[in-house]
Amino acid sequence: MPYAPMTKNLHVCLSPALIPQYHVEDYIVVIVDIFRATSSICYGIDNGAEAIIPVAEVEECMAYRTKGLDYLLAAERNGEVVNGFDFGNSPFSYTKEKVAGKTVVLTTTNGTQALHLSRSAKRIVIGSFLNLTALSTWLKVQKENILLVCAGWKNNFNLEDTIFSGAVIEQLKANDFKLDDPAIAANDLYQLAKDDLPAYLAKTSHSERLKKLGIEKDIAFCLNVDISTSIPVLEGEKLVKLS
Amino acid sequence: MPYAPMTKNLHVCLSPALIPQYHVEDYIVVIVDIFRATSSICYGIDNGAEAIIPVAEVEECMAYRTKGLDYLLAAERNGEVVNGFDFGNSPFSYTKEKVAGKTVVLTTTNGTQALHLSRSAKRIVIGSFLNLTALSTWLKVQKENILLVCAGWKNNFNLEDTIFSGAVIEQLKANDFKLDDPAIAANDLYQLAKDDLPAYLAKTSHSERLKKLGIEKDIAFCLNVDISTSIPVLEGEKLVKLS
Repeated sequence: MPYAPMTKNLHVCLSPALIPQYHVEDYIVVIVDIFRATSSICYGIDNGAEAIIPVAEVEECMAYRTKGLDYLLAAERNGEVVNGFDFGNSPFSYTKEKVAGKTVVLTTTNGTQALHLSRSAKRIVIGSFLNLTALSTWLKVQKENILLVCAGWKNNFNLEDTIFSGAVIEQLKANDFKLDDPAIAANDLYQLAKDDLPAYLAKTSHSERLKKLGIEKDIAFCLNVDISTSIPVLEGEKLVKLS
Repeated sequence: MPYAPMTKNLHVCLSPALIPQYHVEDYIVVIVDIFRATSSICYGIDNGAEAIIPVAEVEECMAYRTKGLDYLLAAERNGEVVNGFDFGNSPFSYTKEKVAGKTVVLTTTNGTQALHLSRSAKRIVIGSFLNLTALSTWLKVQKENILLVCAGWKNNFNLEDTIFSGAVIEQLKANDFKLDDPAIAANDLYQLAKDDLPAYLAKTSHSERLKKLGIEKDIAFCLNVDISTSIPVLEGEKLVKLS
């Protein structure tokens, strides 16, 4: 009997509230929170952060204060740095000068929640436009089903995370994956967006919200494609650089 | 002070699992389950069914058996008629000959669940390609926010319900509604699909599933645009024709 490779699934979970619809344990999960958690995580790991520890609650993050000065504490809620913390999830807080050799403890509105809900996955990696091609190239040669989990906004769908998922699918789809409807939709939307990502995403509600917070520079930075080749991967409780 | 009309929201809920993310009581809700529940409901009401009673469970449906012969009992699960029932949700069971003057009690996998989760809405109406323009014209002059609730497939996103939502938005969007990200996505996907709905939807997973069940004729029928002008509306426990 000839060798018949099993078709792998390439699925997209459009919101953390839909994670229960998937058997997460059957997948490699990619966490996607473009504005701004996963972009900042990719940038921080690429800039030599020893590790980034994602925690779900502000209190868990604060608890690291007692563990010493080696920890940078980052907490964001509703797009803003939480009072009493070193910084939030602006990528400009994750430069080499600030994070090289350090461990960052991070809690965010959407991204770290999605990550915690995906704990039972075969493996969890972090995606953003910054490491799009490096991530896609790695995913292509894995033997497992892939689930792109969009952190979304407050447990609902958002365009930027969906468009990014569509960009990953664009690089993978020639490889005989089986797409679900959300994956088809994400890739179709990416076709509409790809020629001018900033213009396409300018019309989203989240982008409007972030503009009000005065962080247009962050948004522009998060749409830099392929400025990094690092893939953050969850090892135990820590996100580290995949080697 | 001049009269300043408040901008109304036009939102899309991409799956019943996302209904809790909305304050349903702030909206007129349109239930969308293109393949096939809401298409069949529109067709049945247009064909003179006195009422269609949506119930969540097969048992509730069966309970009407004891109430007499005026009730037609319809139950579908996983795309098939449940044993012991008159019919399921094929539109061809909702012809004038079969349903005129009758009351149909209906339970389906996705559509009736979405309806029950939306109970607290200001008003609930039923949408399908069959009544697209009649529905959109009516929605245009309402004074409330509008939420299109996609029944989806097993609590997750599907393309056909999303594309239909995009078609409604296409007719409404010139009227200064405020769209959320799912609404923007639905309308963008509709642009890709509108020139050939059957071809676009042929690639969806649900369409594949329905093909296996041998109901391609149903699918084709459900994509007939504007063959009806009736809008089913929920009054108490019953869907009746909006007058």
